[in-house]
Amino acid sequence: MSVLISCGQQTEKELIATSPAPEQDPLPSWNEGSTKSAILDYVTAVTNPDSADFIPIDDRIATFDNDGNLWSEQPAYFQLFFAIDRVKVMAESHPEWKDTMPFKAVLEDDMAGLISTGEHGLLELVMATHAGMTAIEFESIVDDWLKASKHPRFDRPYNDLVYQPMLELLTYLRAHQFKTFIVSGGGVSFMRVWTEDAYGIPPDQVVGSSIKTVFEYDNGQASIRRLAELDFIDDKAGKPIGIHKYIGKRPVFASGNSDGDLQMLQYSADNTYKSFQLYLHHTDAEREWAYDRDSSIGRLDKGLDEAAAKGWTVIDMKGDWNVIYPFQVD
Amino acid sequence: MSVLISCGQQTEKELIATSPAPEQDPLPSWNEGSTKSAILDYVTAVTNPDSADFIPIDDRIATFDNDGNLWSEQPAYFQLFFAIDRVKVMAESHPEWKDTMPFKAVLEDDMAGLISTGEHGLLELVMATHAGMTAIEFESIVDDWLKASKHPRFDRPYNDLVYQPMLELLTYLRAHQFKTFIVSGGGVSFMRVWTEDAYGIPPDQVVGSSIKTVFEYDNGQASIRRLAELDFIDDKAGKPIGIHKYIGKRPVFASGNSDGDLQMLQYSADNTYKSFQLYLHHTDAEREWAYDRDSSIGRLDKGLDEAAAKGWTVIDMKGDWNVIYPFQVD
Repeated sequence: MSVLISCGQQTEKELIATSPAPEQDPLPSWNEGSTKSAILDYVTAVTNPDSADFIPIDDRIATFDNDGNLWSEQPAYFQLFFAIDRVKVMAESHPEWKDTMPFKAVLEDDMAGLISTGEHGLLELVMATHAGMTAIEFESIVDDWLKASKHPRFDRPYNDLVYQPMLELLTYLRAHQFKTFIVSGGGVSFMRVWTEDAYGIPPDQVVGSSIKTVFEYDNGQASIRRLAELDFIDDKAGKPIGIHKYIGKRPVFASGNSDGDLQMLQYSADNTYKSFQLYLHHTDAEREWAYDRDSSIGRLDKGLDEAAAKGWTVIDMKGDWNVIYPFQVD
Repeated sequence: MSVLISCGQQTEKELIATSPAPEQDPLPSWNEGSTKSAILDYVTAVTNPDSADFIPIDDRIATFDNDGNLWSEQPAYFQLFFAIDRVKVMAESHPEWKDTMPFKAVLEDDMAGLISTGEHGLLELVMATHAGMTAIEFESIVDDWLKASKHPRFDRPYNDLVYQPMLELLTYLRAHQFKTFIVSGGGVSFMRVWTEDAYGIPPDQVVGSSIKTVFEYDNGQASIRRLAELDFIDDKAGKPIGIHKYIGKRPVFASGNSDGDLQMLQYSADNTYKSFQLYLHHTDAEREWAYDRDSSIGRLDKGLDEAAAKGWTVIDMKGDWNVIYPFQVD
């Protein structure tokens, strides 16, 4: 067991402290510049036991939003595409849907009509497609959908559209004993199916929105059944609440891309440790999308102002990233 | 970074597979016998890559109840002693309490009277003592209480009354890459203050009952405020629901001591992997306490019957453990 024991925290701390700087660039998809330097300087400072900014390994909590931060979110949240595709599959057994909004709009590919049904319509859509089955059944539905469906612009599986630079950042932080978490407004059960493979983040380190469930037991068969009732919305002020509830520690590193992440970054910034707040600004209309203050999806308005006022680090996707998606890496 | 990389899962898997059996007994506080053998045989089988029962590291989820399973719970749940002590401290600023149940009973040390107020009275007690402050304030209240208060029978800090054999079991499972979680009916914020030091289980791996919170932000100051409203009760059928919600995977190893843990063990037993269900039977009136079917605290009745019917492993505290608490180890 000695080698296992040599992987203990103290030993790793010493390794970090005493090992020479890695020869390889840990963030090759990040262009040299102030953004990349700010990340490297922060991690170097807080993981050096001789530094006044040193953070003990147990307190190295890093939280990442998912949609528009770890993978793309345009032209609509990918989970919405999932719900739309499910409605089309389920419509056979729901003839009434062709005359009922919001399902009518979905079946007629009338996105404007769907949007016009507002939050209530979208919620109806989610409940009709995400509830009424067991947890295991839902997980295999999501898994099958991911394998079968493709993003309209890139004609690739949706989980191909994760950001290569963010994968490198997650790996870099974990190599320095940060515990990486997803904190997303997306559905936690939708994400957990694929986030371990995509990001190396296990299900218990994924915090998200959820619906209520019940436990069913029948002669040895134990199931979790999903109910058409909201349990928790992990967005805006819900993010620090979700972090407190699921993680129980205040993140020292918080990364997001929209005003829905602002409270998470504020929560992280009010920290006894040296902390790091990172915003991803979508500025690359050619390779990805360009949107911020006026976007209905992933609006970044108040966040841009507060980042400027507080000196938070803002990623300029166009300038700071030399590649967007893993399939573009040579 | 090579040494860090050599701590990867594949490498550890190979180590487990190829390393000789450790010379030292990993469970020295457990007497030789069928209970100890069942645990060792299970872990050996599921961590051997050449075994048909092999479980990949990512799926090695182990869940443990806390009260009466990792630490004692008599003559009453320790969190109830905390609430009682808090009422006595807070009574100064609540003169009305001396005439109001359940507070009157607490202030008059009338435990029977307190119990007679039932669940509603206990809930009132919890809300009065656990809500109305920020998360940080509550954590320091719990921390101060733990340092200042002593268990009535053993005259030692409450967190001295953790079970030495269970500490060894947690360490043994983690050495074989099980991820260990607490899944308890106790308050999650009450536990997270001390469970990392006591058990080596970090806050994000503690699932428990919770009250609602709100996020407050004022000019750079970010707080979580605790509200006097129940959010989630992590007991009975709430345990598999809590496991699904917080962990997102089904445990292969589940350990409890009361009927409140039965659904967690049932959930774990209906598993695609070889799983292990462990009940702690309190049979040692001399060194700890003896109670089961008729106890109001930690009742173990249905659980004993189902364990017998299903062939689950039941710890006989008196016969299987040669020491109870760490302070009794020579």
